[in-house]
Amino acid sequence: MAQKPSIPKGTRDFNPEQVAKRNYIFNTIRGAFETFGFQPIETPSFENSETLMGKYGDEGDRLIFKILNSGDYLSKADGLAYTEKDSNKLTSSISEKALRYDLTVPFARYVVQHQNEIEFPFKRYQIQPVWRADRPQKGRFREFFQCDADVVGSKSLWQEVEFIQLYDTVFSALKLEGVTVKINNRKILSGIAEVIGASDKLIDFTVALDKLDKIGEEKVKAEMLAKGISEAGISKLQPLFTLSGSFESQIESLKSILNTSEEGKKGIEELAFINSAISELGLSTATLQLDVTLARGLNYYTGAIFEVSAPEKVKMGSIGGGGRYDDLTGIFGMKDVSGVGISFGLDRIYLVLEELGLFPETVTKNVEVLFINFGDREALFSLKAIKQLRSQGIHAELYPDAAKMKKQMNHANKRAIPFVVLVGDQEIESNTYTLKNMVSGEQDKVSLETLISTIKKS
Amino acid sequence: MAQKPSIPKGTRDFNPEQVAKRNYIFNTIRGAFETFGFQPIETPSFENSETLMGKYGDEGDRLIFKILNSGDYLSKADGLAYTEKDSNKLTSSISEKALRYDLTVPFARYVVQHQNEIEFPFKRYQIQPVWRADRPQKGRFREFFQCDADVVGSKSLWQEVEFIQLYDTVFSALKLEGVTVKINNRKILSGIAEVIGASDKLIDFTVALDKLDKIGEEKVKAEMLAKGISEAGISKLQPLFTLSGSFESQIESLKSILNTSEEGKKGIEELAFINSAISELGLSTATLQLDVTLARGLNYYTGAIFEVSAPEKVKMGSIGGGGRYDDLTGIFGMKDVSGVGISFGLDRIYLVLEELGLFPETVTKNVEVLFINFGDREALFSLKAIKQLRSQGIHAELYPDAAKMKKQMNHANKRAIPFVVLVGDQEIESNTYTLKNMVSGEQDKVSLETLISTIKKS
Repeated sequence: MAQKPSIPKGTRDFNPEQVAKRNYIFNTIRGAFETFGFQPIETPSFENSETLMGKYGDEGDRLIFKILNSGDYLSKADGLAYTEKDSNKLTSSISEKALRYDLTVPFARYVVQHQNEIEFPFKRYQIQPVWRADRPQKGRFREFFQCDADVVGSKSLWQEVEFIQLYDTVFSALKLEGVTVKINNRKILSGIAEVIGASDKLIDFTVALDKLDKIGEEKVKAEMLAKGISEAGISKLQPLFTLSGSFESQIESLKSILNTSEEGKKGIEELAFINSAISELGLSTATLQLDVTLARGLNYYTGAIFEVSAPEKVKMGSIGGGGRYDDLTGIFGMKDVSGVGISFGLDRIYLVLEELGLFPETVTKNVEVLFINFGDREALFSLKAIKQLRSQGIHAELYPDAAKMKKQMNHANKRAIPFVVLVGDQEIESNTYTLKNMVSGEQDKVSLETLISTIKKS
Repeated sequence: MAQKPSIPKGTRDFNPEQVAKRNYIFNTIRGAFETFGFQPIETPSFENSETLMGKYGDEGDRLIFKILNSGDYLSKADGLAYTEKDSNKLTSSISEKALRYDLTVPFARYVVQHQNEIEFPFKRYQIQPVWRADRPQKGRFREFFQCDADVVGSKSLWQEVEFIQLYDTVFSALKLEGVTVKINNRKILSGIAEVIGASDKLIDFTVALDKLDKIGEEKVKAEMLAKGISEAGISKLQPLFTLSGSFESQIESLKSILNTSEEGKKGIEELAFINSAISELGLSTATLQLDVTLARGLNYYTGAIFEVSAPEKVKMGSIGGGGRYDDLTGIFGMKDVSGVGISFGLDRIYLVLEELGLFPETVTKNVEVLFINFGDREALFSLKAIKQLRSQGIHAELYPDAAKMKKQMNHANKRAIPFVVLVGDQEIESNTYTLKNMVSGEQDKVSLETLISTIKKS
């Protein structure tokens, strides 16, 4: 019956220290979300398959974890697919539910389902795990948390302004200085595609442009050419490849490139508005940067596109992203509800904070005091004191067994518990406690009051 | 493409108020766990199927949600099972992973897998969702949270004493007064079975006895008889059916019933020890009660068995339970690790607090102040103030659009936001803010400092 235990690939166990560090990030994000007026919702881990399927493209559909129906699921299996042994065709007849792939589609479903209870504009946040049957690799898991904040029901650009401030607030609170909030606008990308005569190839064009950082100018041009974008069009792009300088000067360059595209001009106007507001309001530690190559591969963004980069000294890539989508709830039959939102990448933020040593030491609130157990009489006396300590919020415990003192002291050492209390006959008689500071080695016989105040002070 | 959105039966969406109330319970439990020295771990939502299957009995196996393998899963399907269209036999060849059914088996797996990193005795808590393909009904869901605290690596009865105190601490902190912590001991049940000559029918005997509350003495006796327990044996049980009075007097009765059973006497000794310690230490609002009919249907308890009942005025049944299991990790090849633990039933506790009106009003921390939006210039001025407010921890927001004032005020009303700020030309010029108290209707022109202090005071 004995089995060598393991967990599925791409999943993780978290030990107490890791849980505490993750909670530090969650709590910081949650605190900022709430001061910005976002309210929490939670949705089920699994949704009806039809809610999720077809929303993330073919590749997404493949990466969604499907849950097998309960009971005699084969009795309802699609006959033809069964005979043909066609996994792909069979799935929908033996699986009705699937694990959530992101938080955005469930949120859209939530908004449509509960539209009569919701007061719009609705600012919600959601911090829950999602699951993807992706090939696991460094920093990519099959179960991971997303931390999303979205507003639906308003097209105001002030939301974009606020989301940039929100990023700045969270990363400043995490003491992660020097992050870059990159911004682009789908309308800029559409405008450029229009100007170079490639409006029908917008996706191919943005996918290629998105790679500029990684593969360089020449290869991007080659890819565009291969996708059928004309030489003449590509040559019009030249100013884009060398776009640099301040946000404002880039805006000026874009104006000359996009002067024949109404949509492009609208995109410029939006970016300029956002940049001007952020300049007025100021950011604490983050920098706002225009990045016209930013596309995030997602088709549903219709306006602003965000991506956050970790400080340059850490090689991590994106630690957050988001954007505006004008018709997300449309897939569930509710038209014209504009939304805009951002997401924080917990796992990568964790790795960055770890690498830079930014987790506060106090994050893992350890047990503060261990009472050594010398026997039942002493243990009972100790537990009476422990009860008082706990009621004062002190994390205290009794070693459960009257084991050898050395073993108990070792236990305190291994767990880095800063104080140990020894209670023997003498202490019981005099109603005192021998308090040992495990760091300094100092040892004192003290009253309960002094015991409490000493531990609280430390 | 439009779909009428819904969620799978037995699952739930939680709106902001519900999330806040649930978090209030979670945080109270978590706080108590930590003062008692328990440390958090988290395990993956799905485990390898072989970790879970066979651990909860046949019925449990059926209720475990299985995840379909990715890709062309039929290519590895068991040929014979496929031909026979046998769902039950086919499952293990097309599904390798399953959603966690409880937190206890994953914890046992965790302990065995990480035994070299763990310093024993190990006190861990875990607050995570579990999934069961149960028939949904009132208060029973297919996705629900468990809140577990367990200690492994010590047989000390002080743990049982501490768990009773922990229940008392949590329910007192939740202001849920009058809960009953019922306790029994597997050794008592074994002893009784031995005394009535039904040791080989221990399960049948406990299952029947467990129903005493619901079906009454006569039917319990009839069921025992039907299960093959002798008339003579059953007649020896008579004192059990009328057992009442204080913990101590029940212990005395048990002593006379069990005087020929070594195991029974051991159970009595354990119960007496625990009761005596609890009497010395005192409980704030809970009551400890001996209940020899308590079995909790679970075969793995070997010592203490706990169950917590809500106050009698609410009809809810058990809101928590647990016990000692001497060999849980044995199923994963690690022998002789004694464990003891308890669980809190979040959903039922929620219903009880709701029914008794025990959620504090401050649980749902709402947005405290909404700035009315009169246009971009005013909005920018407002956002500068909002930034200051948020940095002071105040939950503040700007209405995103320059909509009609009436619409914006209605929005504040519907969301029960207590303060509204109006900023127009006059305010910008004089660097002041018109602050309206939405409850009293009072309205004042104030400085930023007064704005902050007024909202903070309220």
